[in-house]
Amino acid sequence: MASTVVGAGFDLGSIPTADELGHELYALIRELYPLNRSLTGNGNRESFAILRRHAPFEVVEVPSGTPAFDWRVPREWNVREAWIAGPDGERIVDWADSNLHLLQYSISVDETLSLEDLRPHLYSDPAHPDWIPFRTSYWDENWGFCLSDRQLDSLAPGQYEVHIDATLADGSMSYAEAVLPGTTEESVLVSAYSCHPSLANDNLSGMALVTLLAKYLAHMPHRLTFRFLLSPGTIGPITWLSRNEDVVPSVRHALTCVCAGDEGDLTYKLSRDGDATIDRAVRRALLDEGKPHTIEEFVPWGGDERQFSSPGVGIPTGALMRSPHGAYPEYHTSADDLDLVKPERLADTFQTYLRVLDILDSNVTYTSTNQWGEPQLGRRDLYPKVSAGIDVGGDIDPRPMLWVLNLADGRHTLLDMAERSGFAFAPLRAAALRLEEHGLVERAGGEEL
Amino acid sequence: MASTVVGAGFDLGSIPTADELGHELYALIRELYPLNRSLTGNGNRESFAILRRHAPFEVVEVPSGTPAFDWRVPREWNVREAWIAGPDGERIVDWADSNLHLLQYSISVDETLSLEDLRPHLYSDPAHPDWIPFRTSYWDENWGFCLSDRQLDSLAPGQYEVHIDATLADGSMSYAEAVLPGTTEESVLVSAYSCHPSLANDNLSGMALVTLLAKYLAHMPHRLTFRFLLSPGTIGPITWLSRNEDVVPSVRHALTCVCAGDEGDLTYKLSRDGDATIDRAVRRALLDEGKPHTIEEFVPWGGDERQFSSPGVGIPTGALMRSPHGAYPEYHTSADDLDLVKPERLADTFQTYLRVLDILDSNVTYTSTNQWGEPQLGRRDLYPKVSAGIDVGGDIDPRPMLWVLNLADGRHTLLDMAERSGFAFAPLRAAALRLEEHGLVERAGGEEL
Amino acid sequence: MASTVVGAGFDLGSIPTADELGHELYALIRELYPLNRSLTGNGNRESFAILRRHAPFEVVEVPSGTPAFDWRVPREWNVREAWIAGPDGERIVDWADSNLHLLQYSISVDETLSLEDLRPHLYSDPAHPDWIPFRTSYWDENWGFCLSDRQLDSLAPGQYEVHIDATLADGSMSYAEAVLPGTTEESVLVSAYSCHPSLANDNLSGMALVTLLAKYLAHMPHRLTFRFLLSPGTIGPITWLSRNEDVVPSVRHALTCVCAGDEGDLTYKLSRDGDATIDRAVRRALLDEGKPHTIEEFVPWGGDERQFSSPGVGIPTGALMRSPHGAYPEYHTSADDLDLVKPERLADTFQTYLRVLDILDSNVTYTSTNQWGEPQLGRRDLYPKVSAGIDVGGDIDPRPMLWVLNLADGRHTLLDMAERSGFAFAPLRAAALRLEEHGLVERAGGEEL
Repeated sequence: MASTVVGAGFDLGSIPTADELGHELYALIRELYPLNRSLTGNGNRESFAILRRHAPFEVVEVPSGTPAFDWRVPREWNVREAWIAGPDGERIVDWADSNLHLLQYSISVDETLSLEDLRPHLYSDPAHPDWIPFRTSYWDENWGFCLSDRQLDSLAPGQYEVHIDATLADGSMSYAEAVLPGTTEESVLVSAYSCHPSLANDNLSGMALVTLLAKYLAHMPHRLTFRFLLSPGTIGPITWLSRNEDVVPSVRHALTCVCAGDEGDLTYKLSRDGDATIDRAVRRALLDEGKPHTIEEFVPWGGDERQFSSPGVGIPTGALMRSPHGAYPEYHTSADDLDLVKPERLADTFQTYLRVLDILDSNVTYTSTNQWGEPQLGRRDLYPKVSAGIDVGGDIDPRPMLWVLNLADGRHTLLDMAERSGFAFAPLRAAALRLEEHGLVERAGGEEL
Repeated sequence: MASTVVGAGFDLGSIPTADELGHELYALIRELYPLNRSLTGNGNRESFAILRRHAPFEVVEVPSGTPAFDWRVPREWNVREAWIAGPDGERIVDWADSNLHLLQYSISVDETLSLEDLRPHLYSDPAHPDWIPFRTSYWDENWGFCLSDRQLDSLAPGQYEVHIDATLADGSMSYAEAVLPGTTEESVLVSAYSCHPSLANDNLSGMALVTLLAKYLAHMPHRLTFRFLLSPGTIGPITWLSRNEDVVPSVRHALTCVCAGDEGDLTYKLSRDGDATIDRAVRRALLDEGKPHTIEEFVPWGGDERQFSSPGVGIPTGALMRSPHGAYPEYHTSADDLDLVKPERLADTFQTYLRVLDILDSNVTYTSTNQWGEPQLGRRDLYPKVSAGIDVGGDIDPRPMLWVLNLADGRHTLLDMAERSGFAFAPLRAAALRLEEHGLVERAGGEEL
Repeated sequence: MASTVVGAGFDLGSIPTADELGHELYALIRELYPLNRSLTGNGNRESFAILRRHAPFEVVEVPSGTPAFDWRVPREWNVREAWIAGPDGERIVDWADSNLHLLQYSISVDETLSLEDLRPHLYSDPAHPDWIPFRTSYWDENWGFCLSDRQLDSLAPGQYEVHIDATLADGSMSYAEAVLPGTTEESVLVSAYSCHPSLANDNLSGMALVTLLAKYLAHMPHRLTFRFLLSPGTIGPITWLSRNEDVVPSVRHALTCVCAGDEGDLTYKLSRDGDATIDRAVRRALLDEGKPHTIEEFVPWGGDERQFSSPGVGIPTGALMRSPHGAYPEYHTSADDLDLVKPERLADTFQTYLRVLDILDSNVTYTSTNQWGEPQLGRRDLYPKVSAGIDVGGDIDPRPMLWVLNLADGRHTLLDMAERSGFAFAPLRAAALRLEEHGLVERAGGEEL
């Protein structure tokens, strides 16, 4: 089905193959992986600079101390050097090896301590003794190092030299946003958090996927306004909300993109209401694709959906991911690395996102120009000429058309029709477009703002 | 329970026995079977003339070319002769043997053709090689013959003489309607299509059943206005709608009657909404009768319900049948003959229709004259005098009365009470009438128009 | 969790132990057991006099003949003596042995009859041949005796002397009510019928339980107004309704307390609507306690709920009991005695009642003072300082707080939050109180009147 009508289905011919997409996503992740991201800092700015080469992001800098509802934008954190040297003078833990080694937002230290005094500043994960855990102390002034439990166990008594050369000072917090205006203000927000350092699945996969969605949709006609947001967890979406109170009412659907590249099946976490259009669009995409998947109930913890689902905000926000964060062993450890994410899984997740957005973009209501009785399809070559009674085989299967006509009362969207009829979204949309070409239905509208 | 109150239950004593009903229905079908019905023509008029001897039908003639929404009433078709003679001059297919042999709405032809040239005009059904299929070309000018696949296979090469002597010319389309006014304008429409020639189950069974419903209800007091309609498929109900726009709002329930006489269990196809009063009345009748049955979801193809369920019409219309059309092998073939329908199955279907209409006719709300606390049933001899606490055995089972009293708030109909309580419709209606006789409840109303 | 805020949870420290409660309840039942209660009479007055020593009941006397909707308060019945002497002059049945022996509301008789003439006045229960059944003839002037079926069978032919010395005369009907005003007019009614003579489970257990609820709640701060009612079956609640038409609209929840002390698991009979707040509070209490239990659908027969659920009254009324009345063999027989009820079961039922009332008392809505985005819990020491991402273990489990914040939109009550989140009522209430202390949520309201 080809159409030049806006909202009649994305022009998928302009999208690369799954294989190409997978490699493009993976290459982005590999490029971003070494940078030291956090709530703030130069690692975030460098990351956004890379992503701006692909998609029309604007980077917003919000000064430290700027109020955002109950919060204030934190001081900016930048690290130059951080290590521990052991009793024999050798560096046993070095931030230069892995940026996970440093407790995020650690302040500068230059001290020599006994192992006993050092111990409260060391974080390990006994359940996974070979991996470095990822720990943060964003809002409480502190310092610390993360290391494998095996290494922690092997530390001999003695004096340890600790050196952290970091700046925690007024500066700014960066976030990136791309807006692709459609023909309506009704908009979809796709967001990912951008505050994790060398962690591939959680959540460089999300940053890469959101970037390429923005890249490819930027060159397609579309009905909805698309918004893509990359910002640090919690304070990022809260700050965005505080600067976009006028925009929020038009954001009718949101998806948060996390853990998009691991081997797990797709998982969808429902929005707070559980039956919003975004929930129905994702379910429809997953059903029509026939992919194995899991649907999870909403809980008010997780990613950006925590903030977008606040009582006064109420943007219907789902989270579409592979393995849910927290539910795979490598989560928030050094094992969430470049081996954990796979090009083909990244491409698979991307394609479902694209299908969801495509469904939302076409999800309008129709009004039949014949409200009383069916129109005469036969004389428009839309019905078999010689009839055997039940005419569902043959060249023309009139059933999707009959469903559209029956539900073209200006109240049922194409999603409603798909749910009601059991037909997939695509043949119903094709039928609606065909009927529209013959003047038998008219587009009535989308989600009214 | 006997009552002279209108809406208090049909006087079933005036209905013949099941055995008599079955034979009366079967005799009607047998009489109608040979006539050449189609969208239009004298076969339809002759059929209605027979049915008018039984029920108070009015026959309406609508001139060819009359507009009906997106359609026009077609030209009238009448056939005098139609046959094919083989290379040896013998008539191998003759409309005089079976009116299924002729593609409906064939134009006149008088030609000699090679088998190769004839072939595109011949229709058979390879899946059932001994049966003649039924095919129509109502809206596309054409000619053709239907024959068994076995016969088609046996045709030898050579020259074939084709002769069709038919008139396709301006005339009129006939339909028949019987209206039995009740004490309210709230009305029920029972319809069947009348356009099939020698096909017994689909749908002479429906024509006969609708006719006898009209016959027997014409002599009973009733609350609802009953409308019975026999008209050719698609164009019939569309034309009826176009001439009855003022009537439609009062039609609150409709049933289309098809395939009423085969060996299958009863099947009910739900209305577009799925929970309209007609759906609930049919479910209740089937449950209370304890008959095995199947409930099917609405789809916008099938019989007259296609048109009555158009978005702008919105008459809640179910289809109550035995084997659904299209779902039994003999459908639309010469095997749908007088052997396929059985008197006892016809009577069984008739009785369920009668029960459905009886339920709808009594389906009113009640208001208790004691809104606070129960009335004192004991002093009206409606409660056991010596009480053991839970008084459900004995001569009086007060439970249906207690349900009616509890739900007699002017909002619950008897159908609501049956669904809520788990009691059948009959004991609840009996309880309501008994309470009404004692002045303890008052009839509040039916479906408000 | 301790709080002095009204509606923040009962002060359970002032409630005796389960063991003490069980014995206190049992002792009350034992004291009430021998008295001859009925719809009216001195046995009822003596019973209320005992109960007034425990709880602040007011006893209301309503004169015989007083109209109450469709009813009139009956004459008062008092018995002095009642017996049958056999052919040999020996007393074979004597009311002095068991007040169940006399058909309730029997009039005075002094007669000698043949066994044949006596027989219609004798009631037994062949299904339980050793037990005396309980029978009443409140509204039909009559006399009779109840005896075991074994004894009835053994009666020899001959002349029997029957002596009943009873007064059935104008007087008054007594009922008892205790009202504990809260800080809102929204009220809960807990009622039990008080008309059964020597029957322990049905329903002295209910009278005792209602009395001790009133006793202990009288000394606790509470938000809701509590009403406790003990009155004779049917005519009692109907009379109460007729005298409290102005009070009824504020009664938003009611429980009828029957059969509270047998060995059976708890049973809850739903209110007429089935999803009223009382239904949800009882389900929540039972789930949170983890007690085995059964939920039964509403039917319009049973105890006081029959009257409170009348269409014009519409107080959402559930019945919380152990074995449902009528569903255990000893029901309404002499075997429903002091052995059938157990102190520990009485205490168990009492505790569930207390939990239900506690839930209702705290069931308010909250409004977050931060409607956009989460508040910063960390700086108020309500969130772990060093974060591992999913912070559900450790000293602080923030999840109940996050649920309360997410649903603190002024529309969700704590019950809604419990149902939505899967958390028990207690931790959510604790979270709400903690957030309230920090000024992060405000109490929005209860059930609006």
